[in-house]
Amino acid sequence: MAPTLKKLLAFFLFSIFSFSPISSHRHRHHHYHPLDPLTPSELNIIQSIILRSYAGSNHNLTFHYVGLDEPDKPDILSWLSNHNSTSKPLPRRAFVITRLNKQTHEIILDLSTKSIISDQVYCGHGYPVLTLEEQTAANELPLTHPPFMESIKVRGLNISEVVCSSYTVGWFGERNSSRVLKIQCYYTDGTVNLYVRPLEGITVVVDLDKMKIKEYYDNLKVPVPKAEDTEYRLSAQKPPFGPHLNGATIMQPDGPGFVIEGHSIRWANWAFHLGFDVRAGPIISLASIYDLEKHKFRRVLYRAYISELFVPYMDPTEDWYFKTFIDAGEFGFGQSAVSLKPMEDCPAHAVFMDGYYAGQDGKPVKISNVFCIFEQHAGNVLWRHTETGIPGEVITEVRGEVSLMVRSVSTVGNYDYMLNWEFKPSGSIKVGVGLTGVLDVKGVSYTHTEQIKEDVHGTLVAENTIGIYHDHFVTYHLDLDVDGVANSFVKTSLETRRVTDNVSPRRSYWTATSETAKTESEARLRLGLKPADLLVSNQNKKTKLGNPIGYRLIPGSIASPLLSDDDFPQVRAAFTKYNVWVTPYNKSEKWAGGLYTDQGRGDDTLAMWSLRNREIENKDIVLWYTMGFHHVPYQEDFPIMPTLTGGFELRPANFFERNPVLKTKSPQYVQNWPNCTTKS
Amino acid sequence: MAPTLKKLLAFFLFSIFSFSPISSHRHRHHHYHPLDPLTPSELNIIQSIILRSYAGSNHNLTFHYVGLDEPDKPDILSWLSNHNSTSKPLPRRAFVITRLNKQTHEIILDLSTKSIISDQVYCGHGYPVLTLEEQTAANELPLTHPPFMESIKVRGLNISEVVCSSYTVGWFGERNSSRVLKIQCYYTDGTVNLYVRPLEGITVVVDLDKMKIKEYYDNLKVPVPKAEDTEYRLSAQKPPFGPHLNGATIMQPDGPGFVIEGHSIRWANWAFHLGFDVRAGPIISLASIYDLEKHKFRRVLYRAYISELFVPYMDPTEDWYFKTFIDAGEFGFGQSAVSLKPMEDCPAHAVFMDGYYAGQDGKPVKISNVFCIFEQHAGNVLWRHTETGIPGEVITEVRGEVSLMVRSVSTVGNYDYMLNWEFKPSGSIKVGVGLTGVLDVKGVSYTHTEQIKEDVHGTLVAENTIGIYHDHFVTYHLDLDVDGVANSFVKTSLETRRVTDNVSPRRSYWTATSETAKTESEARLRLGLKPADLLVSNQNKKTKLGNPIGYRLIPGSIASPLLSDDDFPQVRAAFTKYNVWVTPYNKSEKWAGGLYTDQGRGDDTLAMWSLRNREIENKDIVLWYTMGFHHVPYQEDFPIMPTLTGGFELRPANFFERNPVLKTKSPQYVQNWPNCTTKS
Repeated sequence: MAPTLKKLLAFFLFSIFSFSPISSHRHRHHHYHPLDPLTPSELNIIQSIILRSYAGSNHNLTFHYVGLDEPDKPDILSWLSNHNSTSKPLPRRAFVITRLNKQTHEIILDLSTKSIISDQVYCGHGYPVLTLEEQTAANELPLTHPPFMESIKVRGLNISEVVCSSYTVGWFGERNSSRVLKIQCYYTDGTVNLYVRPLEGITVVVDLDKMKIKEYYDNLKVPVPKAEDTEYRLSAQKPPFGPHLNGATIMQPDGPGFVIEGHSIRWANWAFHLGFDVRAGPIISLASIYDLEKHKFRRVLYRAYISELFVPYMDPTEDWYFKTFIDAGEFGFGQSAVSLKPMEDCPAHAVFMDGYYAGQDGKPVKISNVFCIFEQHAGNVLWRHTETGIPGEVITEVRGEVSLMVRSVSTVGNYDYMLNWEFKPSGSIKVGVGLTGVLDVKGVSYTHTEQIKEDVHGTLVAENTIGIYHDHFVTYHLDLDVDGVANSFVKTSLETRRVTDNVSPRRSYWTATSETAKTESEARLRLGLKPADLLVSNQNKKTKLGNPIGYRLIPGSIASPLLSDDDFPQVRAAFTKYNVWVTPYNKSEKWAGGLYTDQGRGDDTLAMWSLRNREIENKDIVLWYTMGFHHVPYQEDFPIMPTLTGGFELRPANFFERNPVLKTKSPQYVQNWPNCTTKS
Repeated sequence: MAPTLKKLLAFFLFSIFSFSPISSHRHRHHHYHPLDPLTPSELNIIQSIILRSYAGSNHNLTFHYVGLDEPDKPDILSWLSNHNSTSKPLPRRAFVITRLNKQTHEIILDLSTKSIISDQVYCGHGYPVLTLEEQTAANELPLTHPPFMESIKVRGLNISEVVCSSYTVGWFGERNSSRVLKIQCYYTDGTVNLYVRPLEGITVVVDLDKMKIKEYYDNLKVPVPKAEDTEYRLSAQKPPFGPHLNGATIMQPDGPGFVIEGHSIRWANWAFHLGFDVRAGPIISLASIYDLEKHKFRRVLYRAYISELFVPYMDPTEDWYFKTFIDAGEFGFGQSAVSLKPMEDCPAHAVFMDGYYAGQDGKPVKISNVFCIFEQHAGNVLWRHTETGIPGEVITEVRGEVSLMVRSVSTVGNYDYMLNWEFKPSGSIKVGVGLTGVLDVKGVSYTHTEQIKEDVHGTLVAENTIGIYHDHFVTYHLDLDVDGVANSFVKTSLETRRVTDNVSPRRSYWTATSETAKTESEARLRLGLKPADLLVSNQNKKTKLGNPIGYRLIPGSIASPLLSDDDFPQVRAAFTKYNVWVTPYNKSEKWAGGLYTDQGRGDDTLAMWSLRNREIENKDIVLWYTMGFHHVPYQEDFPIMPTLTGGFELRPANFFERNPVLKTKSPQYVQNWPNCTTKS
């Protein structure tokens, strides 16, 4: 083989091996970054420090949140500019919420000195993130509870096929509350798809601190929906299968274009940090884009993550009224993250990263393949033009597009949320959510719609099965730092003008009027009513032409809450009242639904903070954007739902002097791959 | 080589050769379909019949529209059910619009008998689609017009670098009109990007029938924006280039999954016909999906295409007020379709199809590679779920998705519209438009925003260059036939209800109330104001559970017109007033802006037809959906615009008994392709 071919083959074989998951990459090459998530050894250190601090009284200590208490923003920014191997590293701190003796503790630890800086008891409303272990324990309790066992017997069911699930109870004006869950149960005889075989009418209230059943209800008797046609496992399906989808593999002769060092990712003109938190799931930090003209990286995003979700169900009856989930704060969106399945959740050429969080005992739990990163070759186009206007010439210029996708999936019980962060060379970040998984359904006696005479709050999706109407709202914390920290929020309204000059044959046109929000109240927006471009703008930096630089938020389809403002779940989720809020940066303002959302009373939400009507002009500001879906279930959503996607785009708006991908060459596509033979 | 390897290699090599464009596929395998576009030989036949019919007086005959006059819908549907090789073929007819001696003729021809069935002179308002030839001729006229030559000289410019472009003039209340165009000119010294170097202030009015300059205006003197930094051709760029995008090739071991026979395409569970029309561009017909449970194909769409566009500019001044384009009817969206560039407009594994239309002389003109068809491997997921609720087990089921993309690009002067029709195995059709190409800009004296004190109706995107505010509205004719022809339009409104029973702790919820539109006025909708699911429903067919079957229209981001209803362009484009209209099927109601939009007066638009308020319940109905973009230009859009995408989804809604891709296996991905060596 000729020498160049040998090199090419060697490089090619190297590329093939580069496709392997690099989950242990971090341990081989340690690149410290102050925003790195807590490592397993740090989690162990935290656990032992705290256990030691409660020595003698820690037998019922439970860990509910262990996360990085990241350094203050100015310190991080200055570390980024100044750090080298001799710099003093930034303090490494953790914020921990524990429960001990029915009290909630907020603990801050310093990992450098391995000491507790503060430990305060929280005396307000609401409880911290539920642990998986306590939910599992609570789910077991009904199975040995005589009234429940009787209910099962009366229904002619086999208790060994019963599986229970935990539901948060919300708050409905009760003066006092104790930390409870409501347990509802499902039947798995003949199917693993438990959520579509509810034992409707049975609700068990469990006191989590005592881990005992507190109340028991068996309200009604309806059939358990049958198991037939509920399976989704491939192994349980009978032919015919179809449609057949021909497979493909994406071959990258030069390998993937991204470089991952620790949690820092570089690809094309983007650089960012990918973190993981037990409550938020993925966190994108310090996203910067390389400006070809200015020959430097320019900041776009300081930190972006899902701050909270709100998933209220629209059935006010006894066993359903409380289903008004605030998923990140109640169940932990990172804790709910699942291991991605190679070649199906992510294409064959994706690479993976693991995540770690602290379990109830404080010890590290690994979620392997919690993230995948891949270049998306969707056949999209960066820009193109065919010029036919010049006589005698036809000019065609096209640039194919590749984008970088960062993906994770959080499954909260029945629902799977696929989270996508797509980085485009044009400077756009497209953020997406794909809804899939299983509907939350109610068992009923109806087997046909003609039997239904009243509002059943949902769609009959199978015999004896109502898919209950519900919403999904996803609130993003988007701390854009558009080429610097001091930004403003600018609303460019498009308004009709009548022509009044009696000269122009036109009677109207629209023009754009920009208003900079001075205080928080001016930036609360319910979208869709009046057309406007929404920008986070750096008024201190202008392009050479004098336009303030900015990034534009382009919403996807818009959904706003339909619950009354005074409805208890809507009070707790008041952060969804507006699609857009802007606040001045405040490190403690992380969780839009408040730090304690389980049974919280809405006294610590984004809506509350924002009542202070603080100044937000030319300051370090944070954009909060809520996207949503109103879900009327359809039969196609049963027994598992085809992915429904939504999202939004952050797009440069006078951030660059001109098209930033004007001088990007199309990726080289090889049309006819050289001879390939299968291995014998 | 072992026999199986030989087979595999042979198959693999066959697959490679299958990647080649199949542009001549149609001629090798003739599969007649009554909706096939007119072939080159049919175009030739039409031309000679018409020339013969005007023998002696045809010296200034021009062809403006030559399209298939498709058979009546009932005849097509019955042909589909009944046809075999001995069936009588359906009549093959063409509809032609010509201009002769300043008159517009509407001619219907029968191609079987090779005769003219009717030839009527059109006496109403408006003119037909412009030909490329007359625009080219008109664009030349200024170059030899002494006042223009003087204007060029006065500006110190070189007339050999001047290129002119044609603009339609609209209608602004004039009592009488003659067929004219307004010509504006650009300077190409140092760049091919003519549109960003306007010779602002010069407007030439050309009488098309006389092909003579009728009026000449040189209104103002502003600098011609400079050529520097306007080029987009790769050959004209100077380093540094970037960012670098690593290439990839999609290898399909089993080849592509689609089969194309003539214009009929089959892929996965979809079958449809892809047609081409000089005015509409792509036409998707007879889209049906295979139902695995019912063991048969079920109709979804009869015919879908872009019926009209409306692109009004928001500058009421002398040289801009008339820029209110109705692109399909004025310029022909099919006539404006361009040849797609392999490996850049479409991925390496795409196949291509040619298109033909009649030029001004009636002779066939070929647009090679007018369509590309490819399987999109974007790494998306059909559905997934991770079940952790069953003690002791973790169940993960994921199905990767492949979709089929049909793409074309229409370039109307400066703007490129990428049209995507994406077919998903789940039964969804995702329709998309990508905007790219070059902004229409105005030359001004300003070089910095601080100099600008008045409303300049746009953004300063370069020195001396304003990107004028404008809209793009794209109106789709969507003749869904949801499992049959008799459909209804159902609006399922989501409405807040207060809880009044004093029992439930909830105070509110939302419920869904469905209303079936009885007449056209009930189905005119401006979207975004109130949440609703919009369905085309077949009330005569219900699922086993009793839900009426349907397809849902899921809008993307919504834009509505901001011009006053009485503004002349908005009268002509009244079809954009509502995002949704529903009409009873009427074969003559094809073009939402009317048959003659050039200088039309809005008397034949969708809005006009719909005033009849006809019944639309349980009838053959057509859905008209308008998507739009309000475009405030940004500097990134200069000198060429990064693609901005929008679209909508048609999604099954109780069309299937259950998830139609439950039994779809993931496409097989090969992670480590076998040893590949480059050819020596």
